[in-house]
Amino acid sequence: MSAKPQAPTSLPDPSNLRDVLAYWMRLKRVEKGWSQERLAMECDLDRTYVSAVERSRWNVSLSNIERFAQALDVEPWMLLRPPGR
Amino acid sequence: MSAKPQAPTSLPDPSNLRDVLAYWMRLKRVEKGWSQERLAMECDLDRTYVSAVERSRWNVSLSNIERFAQALDVEPWMLLRPPGR
Repeated sequence: MSAKPQAPTSLPDPSNLRDVLAYWMRLKRVEKGWSQERLAMECDLDRTYVSAVERSRWNVSLSNIERFAQALDVEPWMLLRPPGR
Repeated sequence: MSAKPQAPTSLPDPSNLRDVLAYWMRLKRVEKGWSQERLAMECDLDRTYVSAVERSRWNVSLSNIERFAQALDVEPWMLLRPPGR
């Protein structure tokens, strides 16, 4: 059984869109109690891709932002708004 | 001299992220009185790419969303929020 999903431990750099997206993806995923594997399955994407996006390693495109937002039940623009803005 | 920049004539489909981005890019560009060429220059991107994005033809990535937002003096997430939300 995979480890319990961990919420982000720090706020993202608001000027770094990859960090902001990674932050919200992890937070919303953990709120659902999902593993990265489950989120990847919900989005029909690869788990290693989800893991890379959550480590700010990927220059994600609109279509995948839409997939993540749909699976996580949020609006796409919310995944790019720095916390507190 | 290129034609006067034209504001969008209709609201975007709120469920289509490309349409929403295209709408805001055109509106913000026209508010600045910029041509597509000027916006492309400000972003160090090609004019044909800007034109294609404004016709919802491109699956834009985070880094280019950041470039457009910076050039248009808005926050990146504002370019993806459907008008009225």
